[in-house]
Amino acid sequence: MFGNPVPQKRSALATCIALAAGVSAAALTVKPLSVFAAEHPNLVISAADIDAMQGAVEKPGRFRAAFLSTQSSVDLALQAPIAVPVPADAGGGYTHEQHKKNYQLMYNAGVLYQITENPKYAERVRDMLLAYADLYPTLPLHPKRRPGAKNPGKLFWQSLNEAVWLVYTIQAYDLIRPSLTDAEAEKIERGALRPVVKFLSVESPETFNKVHNHGTWLTAGVGMAGYVLDEPEWVEQALLDLDKSGRGGFLRQLSTLFSPDGYYNEGPYYQRYALMPFVTFAKAIDNNEPERGIFEYRDSIVMKAIDTTIQLSYNGLFFPINDAIKSKGIDTSELVLGVATAYGESGNAQLLEIAAQQDRILLTGDGLKVAQDLDAGKQQPYQFKSMAFRDGKDGNEGALVVMRQQLDGDQALIFKPAAQGMGHGHFDKLSWQFYDRGAEIVTDYGAARFLNVESKNGGRYLPENETWAKQTVAHNTVVVDETSHFDNDLKSANRHHPKLQFFHADNQVKISAANIDSAYPGVTLTRTMALVNSPGDGSTFAIDLFDVKSEKPHQLDLPVHYNGQLVDTSFDLRGFTDSISALGKGNGYQHLWLKARSKPDSGLTQITWLNDNGRFYTQSSLVDGNTEILFTELGANDPHFNLRAEKSFIARRNKVREHTFVSVLEPHGEYNPAQEFTLEAESKVRELDHKKIGDIELVAIESNAGATQLLAFNRNPVASASTESSFEYRGINYAFSGRAKLFLITN
Amino acid sequence: MFGNPVPQKRSALATCIALAAGVSAAALTVKPLSVFAAEHPNLVISAADIDAMQGAVEKPGRFRAAFLSTQSSVDLALQAPIAVPVPADAGGGYTHEQHKKNYQLMYNAGVLYQITENPKYAERVRDMLLAYADLYPTLPLHPKRRPGAKNPGKLFWQSLNEAVWLVYTIQAYDLIRPSLTDAEAEKIERGALRPVVKFLSVESPETFNKVHNHGTWLTAGVGMAGYVLDEPEWVEQALLDLDKSGRGGFLRQLSTLFSPDGYYNEGPYYQRYALMPFVTFAKAIDNNEPERGIFEYRDSIVMKAIDTTIQLSYNGLFFPINDAIKSKGIDTSELVLGVATAYGESGNAQLLEIAAQQDRILLTGDGLKVAQDLDAGKQQPYQFKSMAFRDGKDGNEGALVVMRQQLDGDQALIFKPAAQGMGHGHFDKLSWQFYDRGAEIVTDYGAARFLNVESKNGGRYLPENETWAKQTVAHNTVVVDETSHFDNDLKSANRHHPKLQFFHADNQVKISAANIDSAYPGVTLTRTMALVNSPGDGSTFAIDLFDVKSEKPHQLDLPVHYNGQLVDTSFDLRGFTDSISALGKGNGYQHLWLKARSKPDSGLTQITWLNDNGRFYTQSSLVDGNTEILFTELGANDPHFNLRAEKSFIARRNKVREHTFVSVLEPHGEYNPAQEFTLEAESKVRELDHKKIGDIELVAIESNAGATQLLAFNRNPVASASTESSFEYRGINYAFSGRAKLFLITN
Repeated sequence: MFGNPVPQKRSALATCIALAAGVSAAALTVKPLSVFAAEHPNLVISAADIDAMQGAVEKPGRFRAAFLSTQSSVDLALQAPIAVPVPADAGGGYTHEQHKKNYQLMYNAGVLYQITENPKYAERVRDMLLAYADLYPTLPLHPKRRPGAKNPGKLFWQSLNEAVWLVYTIQAYDLIRPSLTDAEAEKIERGALRPVVKFLSVESPETFNKVHNHGTWLTAGVGMAGYVLDEPEWVEQALLDLDKSGRGGFLRQLSTLFSPDGYYNEGPYYQRYALMPFVTFAKAIDNNEPERGIFEYRDSIVMKAIDTTIQLSYNGLFFPINDAIKSKGIDTSELVLGVATAYGESGNAQLLEIAAQQDRILLTGDGLKVAQDLDAGKQQPYQFKSMAFRDGKDGNEGALVVMRQQLDGDQALIFKPAAQGMGHGHFDKLSWQFYDRGAEIVTDYGAARFLNVESKNGGRYLPENETWAKQTVAHNTVVVDETSHFDNDLKSANRHHPKLQFFHADNQVKISAANIDSAYPGVTLTRTMALVNSPGDGSTFAIDLFDVKSEKPHQLDLPVHYNGQLVDTSFDLRGFTDSISALGKGNGYQHLWLKARSKPDSGLTQITWLNDNGRFYTQSSLVDGNTEILFTELGANDPHFNLRAEKSFIARRNKVREHTFVSVLEPHGEYNPAQEFTLEAESKVRELDHKKIGDIELVAIESNAGATQLLAFNRNPVASASTESSFEYRGINYAFSGRAKLFLITN
Repeated sequence: MFGNPVPQKRSALATCIALAAGVSAAALTVKPLSVFAAEHPNLVISAADIDAMQGAVEKPGRFRAAFLSTQSSVDLALQAPIAVPVPADAGGGYTHEQHKKNYQLMYNAGVLYQITENPKYAERVRDMLLAYADLYPTLPLHPKRRPGAKNPGKLFWQSLNEAVWLVYTIQAYDLIRPSLTDAEAEKIERGALRPVVKFLSVESPETFNKVHNHGTWLTAGVGMAGYVLDEPEWVEQALLDLDKSGRGGFLRQLSTLFSPDGYYNEGPYYQRYALMPFVTFAKAIDNNEPERGIFEYRDSIVMKAIDTTIQLSYNGLFFPINDAIKSKGIDTSELVLGVATAYGESGNAQLLEIAAQQDRILLTGDGLKVAQDLDAGKQQPYQFKSMAFRDGKDGNEGALVVMRQQLDGDQALIFKPAAQGMGHGHFDKLSWQFYDRGAEIVTDYGAARFLNVESKNGGRYLPENETWAKQTVAHNTVVVDETSHFDNDLKSANRHHPKLQFFHADNQVKISAANIDSAYPGVTLTRTMALVNSPGDGSTFAIDLFDVKSEKPHQLDLPVHYNGQLVDTSFDLRGFTDSISALGKGNGYQHLWLKARSKPDSGLTQITWLNDNGRFYTQSSLVDGNTEILFTELGANDPHFNLRAEKSFIARRNKVREHTFVSVLEPHGEYNPAQEFTLEAESKVRELDHKKIGDIELVAIESNAGATQLLAFNRNPVASASTESSFEYRGINYAFSGRAKLFLITN
């Protein structure tokens, strides 16, 4: 919408600066600015979209239904008088919530104005914007800002919320601009929009330039305002840092905050949240300056980030790694926008299946495409992949590994040799989780938080998020000497990361290995995890080899947190029955009740539980006669009942320098009291064997029926698809190509 | 199918005997025998049904789908060779399971023979029956029978299973009889059918004549064999006891085992199981001798029993009172038969909705009607009722009270002043449960059992069923001096029962009261429960007044077992954090961990929890300053992890002769972390008041908004709809007619 053509040299400058600042070569694909479109609206919704949307609301279908629903709620909201209060409250308080409601209402009313051309919608937006234009110039910094904070707001206690206000409000303004007189527009821009932009950019340089999600919101708001208010300089600053150096800004954020695989370092819960400004601003850039090819930038990183967010879900919910509230999933508003935008861009019919599950249609041009193509039944099954999602901006800081198979129950194994993920990260290097038949089987606690429940620490993270949820023992990975990884030091954790040794996936075998030597001084942790299935007998196993090597003797604990009821153990339990005590004093151990302990004889040890879906799970392990099994329940030292009473068993090996935990998880059978039958309540595993022969490593699982599944893999990190391996096992010679192979040996 | 007309006098005789034996006047409605139909089949499926079924499988629809599914599984089973093994194993073992599979296969193959006329189905049934005819005469009593048991079988370890075999097998024989030569038929009847009948009738007189569910299976099998083998004497014995006295037999069972409201004394879990032989035999009687009017017998008790089984469910699952496995519900095979049969008899379109939920179509004439009418979309919403289901054969042994409202979440309050219910009954007089939005809120543990899970006590009831599940403290009712009702003496419990004082239901108020003075010597327990809703502000409350009067001082405990996470208390919790101990030594208390205790100040005390569906529940109580609140978790003294870790809080008042527990349960708000909002996490109740003014009793609930819900009721048992009551409360006069009224007082 800029009035004049933008000279070619600006783009060349930007490119040079980006290169100088070390932005990768992918940045070169951002093409030069050109003449902006001269009409409103043209941010997420373009004028061309409006024509199609106006037609679509006349016809039955998903889009019309979404339109009527929005119209009905906006019409109800319009019955209330305008309220643009002087800011007073922090998050959750009245003025905070009212300003949030205002920007949502302005946005929706703006959309309805464009669709219906009914002036009442534009008038409400106009009147609210005029009220903001009166109010904003009078505002000091927000009274509830954090003392000494570098990111205060004026309307809100922090500038993050102010930027969100701008992202919505600039779109609302763009949508109703045609209805305004020049005088009205001038007053709004001068009193509200320009001051907010100024406040969030040149007056908040640290946050604006920060390569962080908060920075993304600020640059998105300011950049979009640049398009609407014909200020190309703002767009440049939003893209390239206030000084246009490329050291900060939106392009830098796109280059740094996601890994090359579109993985966001804090995990899917925060990735979902982070998507919103990325997708919104990218769409606005694409509508105004398609020549920039923003969706192709850095090998299509925006599209990858959207798709990876979907990939990191199971049965509609995100994998709850790090600080994550477990009920968040693909139907969140951020991913509704993400899926619609990605579909508009790619036309990938698999995304329609996700959109159908989301069951929410956006009133945008992309939302219309989704609605019409869903109406036409064009969706295709979405393909969830087995993949190592590399972590770190260059993809070399570990990975989040997802192994999946759709056999007999849609299984997923999550293996986490990922980096720490900053302040919301957990001390859980090399942890894992397992999912089967729609349920969480080997679990991660997620965050200790009751969002917005006032009686639970004001709805914020609970103290137990630090004392339990982040601690290593709260996860399915080795704890050395009852101390958490990096001794709970976040700075140290952020500096280090595991190394992904290999990842491989074929029809029968998904396998990955990783190690880390910085979680504990002088200790190397190496874990290999595999998800295998045999077409021979249909069996499925999750295989876990956890190898610990250290200079000095240590106590090693390997917990399995499980969902369900313990139904069987292959050894006697010594239960504490009349009274129980906390297992330890700190690092999360103070929250575990010790309910029983045992020291099984050496050999095969089995623990079976039954989950709520009526499926049995048996963990079979090889123990050495010196390994204790501790059975725990969460809830000790929890005087306010903040923790869920979850269960785990912990394999404990004391005073050891080198040890390998070998175990296999096996889903089996069915408990069906409704139909009065129970099938295969007992594990089929009769014997386990684990061997290393040079680079070759073997795990043999012998079943009661006499058949043996033999997993062989080559541990050499440089092994490739053409590497040939051979070995002898129990007098027979075997050979395989590539990383791994599952042999079915029948007697 | 009898060859000759049956003389009229037999019916007169039966009637006389029935009268002599004390069978109620309803027995008179059983009409005289007449000529039996002369064709096969004519038990549950009649020859006329077959014509319709043959036509229906040619057309698309539910019936054809069910037919194809059955045909596919039977065709698969026919590929296995016939196995009629010599009996050796008890329940769960090979020979036991094989004979079960055999009768199911014979029945299904018989049905398929009639529908398809394909001889392969009849031939398989014939060959199996011939094998049984060879085997059965050689059999001694079963080797695994219980030593000294009065009900051994030959094919199975107990005669109950043998009778089930006969019920299926006689139907299979009836279905394929037209395909047999007379010589084949004679061999089968002589070798298998007649010996089994003889063994189950004259050779098992005690079980055959027993007025008990086992007796029902035996009489059903023998009576149905009487129709098929043209032995009217067997039918008479089945109906009226071996000696035809009416002291035992099917009619007596119908007169005694159900209350006049169709309630089965052991509760819905066993009611569902008991239905099968009742419905099967009744249908066979009706097809052979419609003049008997068996479905009208005792004011249509068979139909009532079916309907009551449905009424005693919530969200598809039976209320888990007494020994009950919680996943059992309306989709069980027994109730599929029951609903189809009741629909065939009544054409009540509400039953179709239940059939649709069951999603299983029977290959019978009634199943066809259900399938066709579901295909035609004829189902109507099934009406769940608020009702006191009277207990006892004469309806005067207490009741199971169900209060329901469909407002804002389909709520149900179960109040249990029912009789003990024999060996599967729990010591839980006057207990209650609460359901909301599809979930169990105030819970009953049900049975402690993992059905058929070998590692859990062989799949039988666990020891904890006695030590926990049956104990009073495992339920939501008063425990005196940490001792269970009737001091756990089943004989005493079976002799006594609570008295239902009143039950009333209108749109705003459902209310019931009951008392019992025999659960503890010298102690009278009186409970009044109400489910109320106010059209004024849409609020809903479950009100509980539990009054205890005793001669001597006692300790009174009133537990609330709840599902969810504790989120708030109006008083400080004194939590046991580093170690916890069992609350007591016996009567179930040994299984409770004491996690926290408090003695709140006198006045209003509130406890709030959050369930998995994101709904908050607050229990508001009036306490006197001497009442302790104990917070417990189940799992102490449970060395094998047999118990689920469920939660409760217990109001404890010590050393008291008279005490009334006054409390109100309030569902409120919503916790929605997925959409990131939390609404009304706090109770609206600001004050509670409880007053007695002569027969009038008042409970006032004042909300934060200032409005007061005032429940007034007349406690006089003889109050009727026309009784006028008036009272003064806080200076204002009120009046109401009938049992109760909810006043909404706004300031």
